[in-house]
Amino acid sequence: MKACGLVVEYNPLHNGHLHHIQEAKRVSKSDCIIAVMSSSFLQRGEPAIIDKFHRTKAALKAGVDIVLELPYAFSVQNSDLFALGAIRSLEAIGVNSICFGSESGSIHQFISSYHKLAENEMNYSYYLNKSLQLGLSFPMASKNAFQELGLTEQLDLGRPNNILGFSYVKTILANRIPIEPLTIKRIESDYHDQQIKGNIASATSIRKQLLKDGKISKEILQSIPQITQESLITYKALSTLWHEWEDYFHLLKYRVSTMTSSELSKIHDVSEGLEHRIIATEKRATSFYHWMSLLKTKRYTWTRLQRIFTHILTNSGKEEMKLVHEETLPYIRMLGFNDSGRKYLNARKKDIKLPIETKLRRNQPLLLNMEERAINAYYSILPGKIKENLLKQERRLPIYERE
Amino acid sequence: MKACGLVVEYNPLHNGHLHHIQEAKRVSKSDCIIAVMSSSFLQRGEPAIIDKFHRTKAALKAGVDIVLELPYAFSVQNSDLFALGAIRSLEAIGVNSICFGSESGSIHQFISSYHKLAENEMNYSYYLNKSLQLGLSFPMASKNAFQELGLTEQLDLGRPNNILGFSYVKTILANRIPIEPLTIKRIESDYHDQQIKGNIASATSIRKQLLKDGKISKEILQSIPQITQESLITYKALSTLWHEWEDYFHLLKYRVSTMTSSELSKIHDVSEGLEHRIIATEKRATSFYHWMSLLKTKRYTWTRLQRIFTHILTNSGKEEMKLVHEETLPYIRMLGFNDSGRKYLNARKKDIKLPIETKLRRNQPLLLNMEERAINAYYSILPGKIKENLLKQERRLPIYERE
Repeated sequence: MKACGLVVEYNPLHNGHLHHIQEAKRVSKSDCIIAVMSSSFLQRGEPAIIDKFHRTKAALKAGVDIVLELPYAFSVQNSDLFALGAIRSLEAIGVNSICFGSESGSIHQFISSYHKLAENEMNYSYYLNKSLQLGLSFPMASKNAFQELGLTEQLDLGRPNNILGFSYVKTILANRIPIEPLTIKRIESDYHDQQIKGNIASATSIRKQLLKDGKISKEILQSIPQITQESLITYKALSTLWHEWEDYFHLLKYRVSTMTSSELSKIHDVSEGLEHRIIATEKRATSFYHWMSLLKTKRYTWTRLQRIFTHILTNSGKEEMKLVHEETLPYIRMLGFNDSGRKYLNARKKDIKLPIETKLRRNQPLLLNMEERAINAYYSILPGKIKENLLKQERRLPIYERE
Repeated sequence: MKACGLVVEYNPLHNGHLHHIQEAKRVSKSDCIIAVMSSSFLQRGEPAIIDKFHRTKAALKAGVDIVLELPYAFSVQNSDLFALGAIRSLEAIGVNSICFGSESGSIHQFISSYHKLAENEMNYSYYLNKSLQLGLSFPMASKNAFQELGLTEQLDLGRPNNILGFSYVKTILANRIPIEPLTIKRIESDYHDQQIKGNIASATSIRKQLLKDGKISKEILQSIPQITQESLITYKALSTLWHEWEDYFHLLKYRVSTMTSSELSKIHDVSEGLEHRIIATEKRATSFYHWMSLLKTKRYTWTRLQRIFTHILTNSGKEEMKLVHEETLPYIRMLGFNDSGRKYLNARKKDIKLPIETKLRRNQPLLLNMEERAINAYYSILPGKIKENLLKQERRLPIYERE
């Protein structure tokens, strides 16, 4: 049996994602699609709009056969760490290929860019540091360095999907991981696009509309499959809300206002005295958005600040983060599977390189400890009884979905 | 000018407290009454039912001339540390005497008990440890040791007011502090009494009734002065609530469920593996009261567990607590004063041994840092705008009340 891996967030799953699943199956000639998915908090430092169970179920109904959880310690990170966690998870479960969406749909561009970068590593570092010293953010500095090396002529690294794709390819090639990288041309509208056009829209634009008035508009309905509509409705009926940063604002305020600056400086990615600015702006901030605006500078991208707030909320420390990034992945956590997924797991048993964890338990690895804190923080805004039920589901994983 | 010091909580101020103020003035022959008051959180490990400003104003209207804040690091503690912070504060502002309520009203009993204890310190320690090893709580073990020494024949140390009074006298005599200890006979009903009888009731019984139905009953009105009635009504109109533990339950759950057991073990007074039990019971607890019941054992009194939860909520660490208890008091913080208070401060300027802090500021002493975290935790359950206004008041201390 052949398997193809996808790296996804499904926040929420839309028509563009359906296209991705179908195309990945076609171009990879695989019998099994395995997605590794960010769970409670996402790469851009945001809580997932609905929980991992509903997103997993939707994925299984949309054609994914196995859903793995991308560990928190890798999901709320820059593209290189995000890619490392995702590719290592997919390697461990034995996929033959991965398939990601890109602007051009040509894998050649990614591979040749990687080789060019590898040859010019010294120059790249030089240009990168030069821009960083000018006070630019990492993504901007990195883009400048690529430009100086002439890499952007081949590959536009200003586009989020290309950045992630390049990180996947880099991780595979640099670590000689036996996975074939494949790409398909994205048919979605621009990732940053705030408008919904036709039956393809970005997850960002869908979330924005959903959270604006708390309703699923006609426009949204055109760009999502029915399973997503159902999961949005079911989750809200269960939990009373769709998760967004403002729901966590009071917890963040409580937390920051009872922390010392020394404690705050020990949180992952808080550096250069940012702890003092976070504490100083806390009292004035009247909303999460307002707090973010008070902190935003050229050096700190919106995304990086959101990631930092996520690590504060989940109490994720620099030291533990360093430890889990240095060690090899200790497990893969399975969120769900269907019959094809089960067949795959049986057929390829001996190729699966890591223990498959499903339940939270005592004396679990540090990586799973950190996951559990992220889970607790994610659900902490929900009423007691509802939270309790969702936490029980965390202990009953994985979800099995009949085909 | 002569001043007499009182150690108070006024949670809320009732008729028994009025009697105490009047009697203290009489027996001490003083021109000025100075109260040192627990502010955000109280000795038994509870949030104050209304904020320090309203309690300070009530105290000033009831005959107190200066109100000092008992620092958080001393207010939520066993009687010896509580007494140390209170007596040192009163010493620093130069009081000539202190006056506390006791069951018998005889200061001789306290002084002779102290001397007997001082002579038998070795024996006391022996009996104390013996009981502690049997798994008894500190108050029970201490009571047993007193009994073995025959001290309880003179002074019933099973009564909370006698325990505190004894701690005041012990602190004064052991440290040769030039303050005369005085006591008056309490006319209140029993501290633990849950019923309101006549026009004297314990603060506990008043709080219990207030919080039960959120109303000020006719019975309560009989046992509190009008100023207390006004402050209860004004504060609730402002803040929407009277503070109680259940209001903080969701914050405690969030906090504990995102802490590691190693972090929890660094919180003040968490020891003997209690951190594991707190984490293990968190998921099951459906209310603060329920959580407490799950943790209660013979060794851990209800009060000690409440104090521990307070330190978790305010993020007060063992190490910083040790530091502030080892150093001499760095300041006294004045919450309010009236004209007599001002006259006293002017007349006795040169006898005041510590800087009088009023405002929170940058680079403040550790003790005031800890206070600020307690303040932030205390107000954290209030809606944004209301909390902001109350925090502004914290920066505008002290309150001046015309006589």
